[in-house]
This record gives sequence, C-alpha cells and structure tokens, in this order.
Amino acid sequence: MEKTLKVEGMTCNHCKSAVTSALKELNGVQDVDVNLERGEASVVYEEGKVTESDMKNAVEEQGYDVK
Amino acid sequence: MEKTLKVEGMTCNHCKSAVTSALKELNGVQDVDVNLERGEASVVYEEGKVTESDMKNAVEEQGYDVK
Repeated sequence: MEKTLKVEGMTCNHCKSAVTSALKELNGVQDVDVNLERGEASVVYEEGKVTESDMKNAVEEQGYDVK
Repeated sequence: MEKTLKVEGMTCNHCKSAVTSALKELNGVQDVDVNLERGEASVVYEEGKVTESDMKNAVEEQGYDVK
C-alpha cells in the first residue's frame, strides 16, 4: 500500500530527514520518500500493521502539520 | 570579544541547531546565539583562539552562506 501525506512547514533538508526518519521508525512502514518542494511524504507500508493516524502522529510529533 | 555573522539560508529550528552546534564546537567559542528571523549568528569568543575565518568555515560546512 502507498499513501501520500500533505505535510506543511518543511523548509529544508533537516526537515526532510526528520520527517523521513520519524515515518521509517514506524513498524509496518517499508519506504518513505519526502518531496520538500511539493510538501509531500509518500509512504509505502504494510496494511494492517500501521494506520494513517500513526503516520500523521509521527509527523506531527516532529512539529509539522499534516492535512 | 563578540562577532555577529550574517548567515544566509537558515529556515527552521533544525538550521538554528546545526549552526549553533557547529560554532560551539570550535575551540575558543564561548557562547552562540542564532537569530533565525534576522539571519544572524552572534558569537562570543576568546580572541587569539579562534578566527572569523574558522567561524565562517564551520557555518559553511553546514551548508549555509556567510556574508
């Protein structure tokens, strides 16, 4: 499964790293690709192991808003 | 002694941390205060132990331009 989150407030490569790491640490997440210019994080994950809400929380804990 | 560097490209608190840490790691640097909005890094240092060039290099190594 793949889901793309709209993430607000990422400004630089540090932000990209912070969001990527937070998502990759979630159990069930297999791959993450953050596009800084588009403000998007694409997450490849195993259904049933992780929810969209888990992803949203992980990103928000880093200080970004998810739409 | 105190010197204020104009630093270009700092966008977020991660940038602030990166620049602050890089400067604080220099021998002779006693205190650092980064103002993100103004794009400035104020450095309190011991003269003779560290040069402005050392500071500039440390910040540039983090990927920012110093004017």
